[in-house]
Formats: sequence, C-alpha cells, structure tokens
Amino acid sequence: MAESIEFTPACPLPIPEYPRLLLAHGGGGQLMHDLLERMIFPAFANPLLESRHDSAVFRLGPTRLAFTTDGYVVRPPIFPGGDIGGLAVYGTVNDLAMAGARPRYLSAALILEEGLPMETLGRILASMRGAADTAGVQLVTGDTKVVDRGKGDGIYITTAGIGTLDHELTIAPQRVRAGDAVLLSGDVGRHGMAVMAVREGLSFESDIESDCAPLHGLVQPLLDAGLAVHCLRDCTRGGLASSLIEIAESARLELRIRERAVPVREDVQGACEILGFDPLYVANEGRFVCFLPAAEADRALAILRADPLGAGACRIGEVADGGTPGRLLLESRIGAWRILDRLSGEQLPRIC
Amino acid sequence: MAESIEFTPACPLPIPEYPRLLLAHGGGGQLMHDLLERMIFPAFANPLLESRHDSAVFRLGPTRLAFTTDGYVVRPPIFPGGDIGGLAVYGTVNDLAMAGARPRYLSAALILEEGLPMETLGRILASMRGAADTAGVQLVTGDTKVVDRGKGDGIYITTAGIGTLDHELTIAPQRVRAGDAVLLSGDVGRHGMAVMAVREGLSFESDIESDCAPLHGLVQPLLDAGLAVHCLRDCTRGGLASSLIEIAESARLELRIRERAVPVREDVQGACEILGFDPLYVANEGRFVCFLPAAEADRALAILRADPLGAGACRIGEVADGGTPGRLLLESRIGAWRILDRLSGEQLPRIC
Repeated sequence: MAESIEFTPACPLPIPEYPRLLLAHGGGGQLMHDLLERMIFPAFANPLLESRHDSAVFRLGPTRLAFTTDGYVVRPPIFPGGDIGGLAVYGTVNDLAMAGARPRYLSAALILEEGLPMETLGRILASMRGAADTAGVQLVTGDTKVVDRGKGDGIYITTAGIGTLDHELTIAPQRVRAGDAVLLSGDVGRHGMAVMAVREGLSFESDIESDCAPLHGLVQPLLDAGLAVHCLRDCTRGGLASSLIEIAESARLELRIRERAVPVREDVQGACEILGFDPLYVANEGRFVCFLPAAEADRALAILRADPLGAGACRIGEVADGGTPGRLLLESRIGAWRILDRLSGEQLPRIC
Repeated sequence: MAESIEFTPACPLPIPEYPRLLLAHGGGGQLMHDLLERMIFPAFANPLLESRHDSAVFRLGPTRLAFTTDGYVVRPPIFPGGDIGGLAVYGTVNDLAMAGARPRYLSAALILEEGLPMETLGRILASMRGAADTAGVQLVTGDTKVVDRGKGDGIYITTAGIGTLDHELTIAPQRVRAGDAVLLSGDVGRHGMAVMAVREGLSFESDIESDCAPLHGLVQPLLDAGLAVHCLRDCTRGGLASSLIEIAESARLELRIRERAVPVREDVQGACEILGFDPLYVANEGRFVCFLPAAEADRALAILRADPLGAGACRIGEVADGGTPGRLLLESRIGAWRILDRLSGEQLPRIC
C-alpha cells in the first residue's frame, strides 16, 4: 500500500536484544515498558495515545467520551473472590473511571479454546452479566471465536468500554503537580495473592479473596464535590509501585511514599513472605491512587471512606517539589529512603 | 453477588448435547448460531443486542454512535494479500460501516504467545498502522498481554471501534422489506481461499489474494445520495450464504438469489472445487450485501461501481413478497430452486 510509506519513520523496530517475545514482556515491568515504548507506541503514534493513560479521551460533537480496552488472560479463570468474566467487566469499567468517566457501554470478545466445558462458559457469562448489572453498564456488542485445543487456555476475554465525562477536568499523569498529595483507596496485594494461592495450590490460614470491584462509584463523588483531581490510576499489573513509577515518569516529577502508610492485610503480607513477593508490586483489581492538591486531601479521604470500597483509604505520600524527575522514593518502616524501580521481568505472569 | 439473583431467569443454560466446546462452535454455522442464541445472547439480553447486527447503535448526547468489536485468530497470521493486523483494522471498520457509520476511533488488544518473533510482531503492527491510515481511523487505546508458550498461537488481536452516524436511517435486518433488491459489492470467496491455500500448502496457478479492504468508502456515497438503505452486512465467517440466512431469519422474510448472478473468480471456483468448498459459504473480508427498495437498485449499483472496490457490484436477488419467513432460496445455474441452510459445523475454522 502506498500509504505505508508515509509512516515509515515511525515504523516499529524490533527490540534487538530480544528477537522473540518472553513471558516477561507481559508482566508489567521493565521489559513490558520497553516493548510498549519501542514497538507499540511508535507504531500507532498519535496525540491521544501520547497521554499514556488507561483511556483515550476525546470529543464527539459536544460529548466528551472515554474509550478503553483490555484483554484478560488470567490463569486460572476462576479464582477466590472472582473470575475472568467479572474481572473483564470491572477492569474496563475501572479504566474508564480512572479517566473520570461514567462507564456506559461495554463490548466483549471471547476467544474460547476447543474443549472448554460449557458449564464453565455459562458460569463466566453469568458473572459478566452480574458484574455489568452491578456496575450499571450494558454489554451491547460482542464476538465469539473458537481456537483449536492447545492454542488457547480455556477462555480469554477482551472488553472495550465507552464512558462519558460530565466535567471539563483533564485527569492524566501530565496534570500531576509538585506538592500534590498521593492517596490510596485501600489495602494492596489481595488480587495477586488470591490468584497465586490457588495457582500454587497453597491454602493460607485466612482465605484471601481478590479485591476485584468497580471503582467509578468511588471516583464520581470526588468529581461531584468539585475536587481538583489531577490523576487517577488503578494499581493492576505490577501493583502500586509500578503504577506510581509510570506516573512519576509521565509527569517528570519525583514521588515520595511511606511504606508504613500503605495498608497490607496481615494474611496478604504473610502470603507474600512465603512466596517471596513484595506486596507493593502485587496486582490489585479494586484499588487506585489519586493525585490532587494537598489542601484537598482530607476532604477527598472523607469522601472515599464514606464508601465501603474506600473504607481503608489513606494518604501514602506526596509529589516532591524538586528531586529527580521520574523517580519513586520509598521511606521504609525504619525510616531509610530507597528508590523503587520497575521489576525487570514478570513477578506474576497472567495475573489479569 | 446479590444482583445475580435479578437476572437468573435469563441465565445462560449450557447446551446439553455439547458439554464441551467444539471448534465448530466458532465456524459461523448452525452450532455457532446455537451457542449465541442459547448461551451468549440470553446472558447479556438487552435491547441493543437484540438488533443482532454487527454494531450497537445508540445516542450519547445529540451524537449517534456505532460501537463494535471483533476478535481475530486467523491462522496463519500472515497470508496472501494481508495479515491479521490489517484484517483486525478493516474488519472492525467494516462492522461500523455496515451500521452506516463513519469509523473514527479504534482500540486494539493484543494477546501474544511467548516465543513470537519480534519481527513478526513488528510487521503486523506496521500493517495495523497502514490499514488505520488507509481507512482514516486512529488507534487510540490498547492493551498487550503475553501468554505462555502453547497457550496461544503467535498473535490474537481484538479490535473495538467507534463510529459516528450523520444520518437518521436505521440500517438493520429488521428494516428489510418484501420487494427489496439484494445487491452484492463484488466477487466472493477470495479471503477464505487465500488463507486455505497457504494453510494447506497448495499453490494454485493464479495466486489468490485476500479481498481484505475497508468498505466505508463504498457505503458512505450510498447514504450521501439519500438512498433508502435498509440493511448492510459484510460476508465474513460463513460467507455470503450465512450472512443472507442471518438476515432472512432476523427479518422474518424469504430471500431469493440467483447463483448465476453471484460473481466468483475462475481461480477461486477452481480452488473451491479442489478443496471441496462451496464459494457461497467461503469467507470474504471486502464484500457486503446491501438491501434497498428495488426502484433504487440501479442508482445504488452505479454508485458502487464508480469505486474500484465496488467495480464488480451486481444485483443477485430479491426479498420475496410471501414465501417462508427465514428461508434463503437459491436458483441454481440450471434453473432449479433449492433451500440454502446453515452449515452445521465449520467449513473453515479460524478464517478470521
């Protein structure tokens, strides 16, 4: 095609160190970052993608819309506290919520493997419908493909979502400012450890369940209260630390958080220790961080805590005035500061 | 979840004859129809899904939007005349076009298998970008997941798309009327046979290439001319015959088409004979049928033929005034009439 010449300069360059894709390229760490920055974003370069946010936000006529998509490949598809169906609905609902949008319409594309028990499919479809009803969205269009045995893993689901913005705020990493407070909506690490426990066949004393939940009901009151929300980000693949590193880099600012301030349930902490994970890097599906002016932090926390999903909301740190752009600093429990980096490989493959 | 009780009556029932999913459940035939009608549509039941069309159409503020999604699992991912990247863009662009929408924004979710050569990924990404540029759409949001070796097949892509409607027509199977003409935009069977030829390692005398192309440029002039288009449908999985059967059933009308009027290239016909396929059931990725009042058929054909993609457009039949609702009748080359049914299983698994 003649048109292909026009975009040659932006043509993706295979990453020479890795001639073939590794599992770690999907793990939310440094390799994934490289894959996105060096192959995928250059291929599709356009201003909406540049925002590096979970949703694209644009105007169609007078209406501001958010649009997002996510593929779900979690293994196993049914885990304590949820399943791939609910995850696929809430995950996309949450990506819309993180742009400050009201989730409205979802699509769902199923890639099913030959041999999948119909009962499993039925259970997952019912879970999707239940999640859509809970979140107040409609699944309005979809697609179903079947692949041969050994070319899938039971079920993969890709959802896309459309939401509407009824405010004029731009909620994005680029809006973060020095002095902003960093709020976290609750305890971290549950989704990842719930999936790992069942995957590894472990049974912990206290059963850990995924925190999978729709978050727009928690975000909307912040916006309705007129708070100057600068950025929202759910702490999924790569956990809280990876989300904060992404934001620090996009905002070109230094973030400082206090380990002591980050709530981790005792059983989750214990499971992390057994399996050798850092809870700051473990995936969540019902937690997000919120950046806004420090003067508004207390009001925001009061609003978050009024909802059961935000009962554990807390202030975990600040955006530094100065420091090294793109750096995330953690004050440890004993008061020492250290830099938190992206994990190079994958900590938890196929966690969502 | 308490909410799940509310939709229990619509809860999907596993199809008892098939406790496990078969490859044929994805083939576009009777089994797929059963899967959709008995499990998937009941699970998500809502008025927008009821239209049984490729896109959901709704209003957000004053703007009419179309929204659609499709997963692409074609094997092999690169085939004569195209690849999974271009297919994933054009396929979704075409689903929007079939609702009479101008395609605007696309999302792309990649499910990549560990071990995929980066060069293949780079080539497919470049093809997606090229296709998006050709179709005048932007890929604005996306997601990348990596699954373990043996749990995928190189690359699966799910795209979703948003389009805008700048007219007030409802273009859907339910709008088809007795007496409507059935137009076809060109010869059929190329995409399916191009993929099969490379898959089976066959080389035909004349190389058959996929007809993969964006169709909205062909549809828009029909709308701009003020023609009363009743229904549009691209003839993908299951081919021309399956698309017409779906429309006949949704419209509760009888369709009558003439085999002689359906263009099939000689090399495609030959390949079909060698492999034992009926070209009427072979997938296309750049062909559609158009239903509109017979009095407007000649004007519509003239408009279609003015575009190289529609050069072979022709009238292939009519909607009967009477007959059996939901039936597709074919007048064979020797003048005999026969009923065309859905294929029970899959003719061409993983063709798109």
